[in-house]
Amino acid sequence: MTMEQFRRLAKTPPKGWNSWDCYGASVTEEEVKQNAEYMKNHLLEYGYDYVVVDIQWYEPTANSSMYHAYADLEMDEYSRLMPAVNRFPSAADGAGFKPLGDYIHSLGLKFGIHYMRGIPRQAVHNNTAIKGTDKTARDIVKPNSICPWNTDMYGVDTTKPGAKEYYRSLIDLFGSWGVDFLKVDDIADSKLYGGHLEEIVMLREAIDESGYNIVLSLSPGPASLEHGAFLQKHANMWRLTDDYWDNWQQLYNMFERCEKWAPFVREGNWPDCDMLPLGHIGIRSVDGGGSDRLTRFTKGEQKTMLSLWSLFKSPLFFGGELSDLDDWTLNLLQNSHLINMHQSGQNPEQISRKDDIVIWKSESDEKVWLALFNLNDTQKTVIYNANEHILGTINDFLEIFSRESLSQTRIQTVLAGHQVKVYEIHKFN
Amino acid sequence: MTMEQFRRLAKTPPKGWNSWDCYGASVTEEEVKQNAEYMKNHLLEYGYDYVVVDIQWYEPTANSSMYHAYADLEMDEYSRLMPAVNRFPSAADGAGFKPLGDYIHSLGLKFGIHYMRGIPRQAVHNNTAIKGTDKTARDIVKPNSICPWNTDMYGVDTTKPGAKEYYRSLIDLFGSWGVDFLKVDDIADSKLYGGHLEEIVMLREAIDESGYNIVLSLSPGPASLEHGAFLQKHANMWRLTDDYWDNWQQLYNMFERCEKWAPFVREGNWPDCDMLPLGHIGIRSVDGGGSDRLTRFTKGEQKTMLSLWSLFKSPLFFGGELSDLDDWTLNLLQNSHLINMHQSGQNPEQISRKDDIVIWKSESDEKVWLALFNLNDTQKTVIYNANEHILGTINDFLEIFSRESLSQTRIQTVLAGHQVKVYEIHKFN
Amino acid sequence: MTMEQFRRLAKTPPKGWNSWDCYGASVTEEEVKQNAEYMKNHLLEYGYDYVVVDIQWYEPTANSSMYHAYADLEMDEYSRLMPAVNRFPSAADGAGFKPLGDYIHSLGLKFGIHYMRGIPRQAVHNNTAIKGTDKTARDIVKPNSICPWNTDMYGVDTTKPGAKEYYRSLIDLFGSWGVDFLKVDDIADSKLYGGHLEEIVMLREAIDESGYNIVLSLSPGPASLEHGAFLQKHANMWRLTDDYWDNWQQLYNMFERCEKWAPFVREGNWPDCDMLPLGHIGIRSVDGGGSDRLTRFTKGEQKTMLSLWSLFKSPLFFGGELSDLDDWTLNLLQNSHLINMHQSGQNPEQISRKDDIVIWKSESDEKVWLALFNLNDTQKTVIYNANEHILGTINDFLEIFSRESLSQTRIQTVLAGHQVKVYEIHKFN
Amino acid sequence: MTMEQFRRLAKTPPKGWNSWDCYGASVTEEEVKQNAEYMKNHLLEYGYDYVVVDIQWYEPTANSSMYHAYADLEMDEYSRLMPAVNRFPSAADGAGFKPLGDYIHSLGLKFGIHYMRGIPRQAVHNNTAIKGTDKTARDIVKPNSICPWNTDMYGVDTTKPGAKEYYRSLIDLFGSWGVDFLKVDDIADSKLYGGHLEEIVMLREAIDESGYNIVLSLSPGPASLEHGAFLQKHANMWRLTDDYWDNWQQLYNMFERCEKWAPFVREGNWPDCDMLPLGHIGIRSVDGGGSDRLTRFTKGEQKTMLSLWSLFKSPLFFGGELSDLDDWTLNLLQNSHLINMHQSGQNPEQISRKDDIVIWKSESDEKVWLALFNLNDTQKTVIYNANEHILGTINDFLEIFSRESLSQTRIQTVLAGHQVKVYEIHKFN
Repeated sequence: MTMEQFRRLAKTPPKGWNSWDCYGASVTEEEVKQNAEYMKNHLLEYGYDYVVVDIQWYEPTANSSMYHAYADLEMDEYSRLMPAVNRFPSAADGAGFKPLGDYIHSLGLKFGIHYMRGIPRQAVHNNTAIKGTDKTARDIVKPNSICPWNTDMYGVDTTKPGAKEYYRSLIDLFGSWGVDFLKVDDIADSKLYGGHLEEIVMLREAIDESGYNIVLSLSPGPASLEHGAFLQKHANMWRLTDDYWDNWQQLYNMFERCEKWAPFVREGNWPDCDMLPLGHIGIRSVDGGGSDRLTRFTKGEQKTMLSLWSLFKSPLFFGGELSDLDDWTLNLLQNSHLINMHQSGQNPEQISRKDDIVIWKSESDEKVWLALFNLNDTQKTVIYNANEHILGTINDFLEIFSRESLSQTRIQTVLAGHQVKVYEIHKFN
Repeated sequence: MTMEQFRRLAKTPPKGWNSWDCYGASVTEEEVKQNAEYMKNHLLEYGYDYVVVDIQWYEPTANSSMYHAYADLEMDEYSRLMPAVNRFPSAADGAGFKPLGDYIHSLGLKFGIHYMRGIPRQAVHNNTAIKGTDKTARDIVKPNSICPWNTDMYGVDTTKPGAKEYYRSLIDLFGSWGVDFLKVDDIADSKLYGGHLEEIVMLREAIDESGYNIVLSLSPGPASLEHGAFLQKHANMWRLTDDYWDNWQQLYNMFERCEKWAPFVREGNWPDCDMLPLGHIGIRSVDGGGSDRLTRFTKGEQKTMLSLWSLFKSPLFFGGELSDLDDWTLNLLQNSHLINMHQSGQNPEQISRKDDIVIWKSESDEKVWLALFNLNDTQKTVIYNANEHILGTINDFLEIFSRESLSQTRIQTVLAGHQVKVYEIHKFN
Repeated sequence: MTMEQFRRLAKTPPKGWNSWDCYGASVTEEEVKQNAEYMKNHLLEYGYDYVVVDIQWYEPTANSSMYHAYADLEMDEYSRLMPAVNRFPSAADGAGFKPLGDYIHSLGLKFGIHYMRGIPRQAVHNNTAIKGTDKTARDIVKPNSICPWNTDMYGVDTTKPGAKEYYRSLIDLFGSWGVDFLKVDDIADSKLYGGHLEEIVMLREAIDESGYNIVLSLSPGPASLEHGAFLQKHANMWRLTDDYWDNWQQLYNMFERCEKWAPFVREGNWPDCDMLPLGHIGIRSVDGGGSDRLTRFTKGEQKTMLSLWSLFKSPLFFGGELSDLDDWTLNLLQNSHLINMHQSGQNPEQISRKDDIVIWKSESDEKVWLALFNLNDTQKTVIYNANEHILGTINDFLEIFSRESLSQTRIQTVLAGHQVKVYEIHKFN
Repeated sequence: MTMEQFRRLAKTPPKGWNSWDCYGASVTEEEVKQNAEYMKNHLLEYGYDYVVVDIQWYEPTANSSMYHAYADLEMDEYSRLMPAVNRFPSAADGAGFKPLGDYIHSLGLKFGIHYMRGIPRQAVHNNTAIKGTDKTARDIVKPNSICPWNTDMYGVDTTKPGAKEYYRSLIDLFGSWGVDFLKVDDIADSKLYGGHLEEIVMLREAIDESGYNIVLSLSPGPASLEHGAFLQKHANMWRLTDDYWDNWQQLYNMFERCEKWAPFVREGNWPDCDMLPLGHIGIRSVDGGGSDRLTRFTKGEQKTMLSLWSLFKSPLFFGGELSDLDDWTLNLLQNSHLINMHQSGQNPEQISRKDDIVIWKSESDEKVWLALFNLNDTQKTVIYNANEHILGTINDFLEIFSRESLSQTRIQTVLAGHQVKVYEIHKFN
């Protein structure tokens, strides 16, 4: 697979569901399935099709978002982590995620998993084998390369014989399970070491040479702008921030991050604003300063977030338990105008920021989208002349949440604090 | 003028001549004219049309690239620097650069000048007036904002009444002279303060509101990637490096800089690799570790440089004395294939770097360009399968320097150290 | 003068009064004199003997602590700043500070002044002479070396002929005025450049070679610990912090600074916690977040501060208007036990810090001092066994504020928030 | 034990032998004994009395200075590392280092060992017990606290119940073996985390409360000056540099380090310049860019080093195999003047550095020592007037290497490159 080919695996930003925001490290097969079923029934036609099992599906005692340091992990004879059978019964007898993958595919959906950079510490301490080689875990480990927040793995020394084969053996295993999407963690940034570029290169090559069509997502953020061009050549998406949760300050800060990363948005390369912590979250996750709850974002903030993520073309992974989804949130996810902007918009760009009034724009052959955000806590009147940033004749303004239309290019509108208006504009032919 | 409009002023990367590499701070009107005339006769039809008078045209005693600290500067009653009449005789009687601008325009060329960020220190110490206001220089100065390498100016405090009027008065003056291109210095980066973003904003607004069509170029580098998106909204070009001269290490390092900045290249926004220190340079400049000389770059290095600058779509400003130009260098500047790649290529990108073999690609609707660089000191055999990065059928490979054509997509070639081959490939219809 | 000799000029930490905390940059001769007279009458016998005129005595229009950017300064023909005669009438006819110095000496006191690092910008722009040389200000200026917060001066390039003579001419002038104490500013630290070590060396040599006995004090802080050993060889005192004012957080933070700097305290080298913002301050100073006021420190905080400063052996310069001094504060300054500890204590050291209970110790041949500080906002019971840090037999505990004595070495005491108890212990012979 | 008491354990800087420079991680009991015996016979009367077994005495397969990542370590049931019996036969049957300690004590010497900060990774992965508690290794481990250069240990979380007991159990074990000197590594600095202050505090308290008289030495360097005052309260010695070897550049750089650390030298607190890589070194160590060799230092450099270490009062641990010691080096170690300066000098201080001529001074009640170093590669004439830094009458100058005496206080001498002269001066009574 070439760079052009791997980018075509994600011609538009991936959309789907991820288990982290509600279940932390502890999601079960049953929970995955119920979310997959909901997705098939209510969201698939709107383009949501990835179901992603996040971190530590190989840890039998995982029960929240808190990691159990040095816990015994399910592992095969080749130093590869395997699903914990008590949590994923269909993985019994070495079947791995193949049965779950098959089930998800049977619903017309795609299957994603999470993996940590490196090789399990228990593989290194027990010095287990590397598939297809005469090497063992200690031959390829990078001593003292660790993850700062999780004890599962050591890093891999990519210069060592056997390292390449190890990463390839992982991809082959995941490919055989039917994995369509791989989120690799502790790799895009590390507070101890910065980004682990060598292991990103090795992962890229392993996927390319495997023949499997696997979308590659890198975590955690913040990735460095210095690595932006590198990441475009090696991954489909990468995180802009550390874990994102339902508090305003994080959403507020995302605007500046998106502004800086916008030049890197292109087909197949999607800087990632992280999951949508909406609906019913924190069910067994205790991260983000909350517990079992409905999202702490107001409706205005939720629209603000969806509008930014969609215009910026971030991947959209819902974080809440789908089977508990309320109508208002479901409607937001199904908003056809947002979806159209997310899929069709090109060259997203922040075109103006005066104090807390922020304006973004994107464009397709037929349309222009303008999003006016009020990031202030108080109501503001926003005046904006669309001609300033849109060349040529335009007509047909539609505000996509209120469905109000406008007959002039000079917008004057009142925005409550933490509110957004998004205008969809048809270009005149 | 809107952002879209100012970007259209430089739909393709500007090309021309700049006085710095040969004359430092000391160029004279006669020298400017002789270069303009040469440009009209030999380079205009190849797209070179800007003639730029670099720094300190307002300093009567300037005689090299060394600045005279605290020298008396030619200045008008409104705190605006004026051409030194001893160096630019046509500027006598307050005419400023209008006569020189008219002359350059009469040749069918465009006229560019350099200016330092801020307001002259002598204006502040003498507390002179700001045009169109009741303010004086001390009212708008930003105390203790200086340039780390030149004593001409203090910074301007953009929050002060009169600051906006001052910058606007500069643009109005330059516009009245017929200035088409403005290179503002001590603004894109400063070793003391980082980039001066507020003054960049004020400059942008002054130009936009003036109605003058002036291309804006920002110096010096290295600009920060953190400011990349900001710079796209405010300038036509900005420098990636500190001053660039004719030594291999600087050229070598430019590859990594270009790799990181490539995502920011787009119509009207041209990250700038700096002038081409080719031909006869250092005539009165003593910067760059050299003196009056022919460029120290080998022919291979010159082709390497032109190929990178052209593929990356950097602005191309020749730095040598044009009237002394040799045939080999002139041919290089007139190479129609390079010119075509520079003007028509889109989305330049480094697609591979293994050790010192570097491959770049750009593309237009009809063509693909591949540049294979050997940055090593010794000869290397390079094998490259063009299918890896070019989707679809391709044919018709032409190496643009040797004019050799290739009948297959698998390139195998030998490159001497510091050499380049550039392949132009016609897409099959 | 050798290093041993200049250190003997300040065998104990200097004590006195400084004009900054009440008058900012604007003190007048009359105000200086009234403070000097009060000092002679009430504080001289307690060891306070320096009267220091702080910054900008050469600026005729100075009227607060706000600097007037680029104001015209009083200057002699040799580029040396002279007292503004409107503020210091006795300086008329070129007499400089000689009459004021004589007056202060006539009271049995010592005379100190402030000076900014470098050479006046107006000297450089007017290119005035350097005494005893054929050089002018532009010959010795360090272009683009400025103070980040004041526009009076440019730095001096110590490698230039004339630089040494310039600094020597300053010291000779100050010496001829009878200056006993010189506080040089913008030199121990600079947010733009770090410490200006070369100019410190040149100042040291100028004083040593001049034969004048001038105590050298360096500002502002925070000086770097990396320069600690260097500063010991070049100055009598240097600041640990940026300007210190009457707010608890700054006092709280001083404990950690003192802890780190304690190893550098020795005869003739006194790390400086800055002036005491006590009594009536802010009379024309608007720094420190306050205006004309009595100190915002509570009595407990004032005792805390005096105890730390005294035990740590910081210089003690009172910052309030002495003629308005209340009895309580006067008694604090006259506390003989504090004074004895400040003058006689050796090797001050923080010996314990658990949460907000901090214990310091110093020692002389006859005595030990223990200071127990409660930096918490709420009352705490402190239990401390003095035998832990005091070897040998001890007896005779006296708490110096309450005058209570203790008959045992195990101290158990209750401290209100922001309170201190200081125990003076006689060693047994 | 109080701070005063632990400092009295090392009233003068410790001297002895350490196994690292010749044997890396692989020294054997026999080698330790032969060095101890040599020390008793030739160096004990000169004050050398510590015999220190450096890192990884618990690793059975250790055979050089290269660590074996994740090797199985000898460990007792309480997660404490034990001597590898194949290397230390007397440690059989759980005797630990008691027999070796007894042997060393029988020679009139003191016994030192090395230990790594933290708890063995194998204890954590096997979750073994903590002595005297119901906790296990996983209860007290600090997840993801590692050593950047060795895989033996994880850090300990000092806030966890059981952490204090673990460190105390180590000290009790070492104390029961007769350990007089403990060098703890990966603690004074870490390229990943900086200094591990909490674990230093816990070690200090464990020793103080144990009742064992154990000198505490902290590695590796460079310790931070910011921690200097902290280290004085917690350890007897700490390293100024990363590992020091026999190359001139490291020796050259040590002068600046010593200059900055000199204010922290006091009884019981000895900033540590690291072992003396002299004589026969690198026998099984491959660090320091060398192999089995005689020191690469010239005789001039060896004298330079010994003079600096001695004047600065660094601990002096010989790194070469003592039984192979040549007469010249032995004489250097036995130089009574150096020894006297090392033991009796007070307040070492660099008093002058002009280019590469560096002068240090220290002083006792009876004597002054002046060391003149030429750090340049070429010969220099040095003129120095001793009166500059020595107050009072002095007489009787003796150069301690040449035994030449001087009859005047103005020294004028020629120093070859990398040479030193040390003058011992008797104060006149």
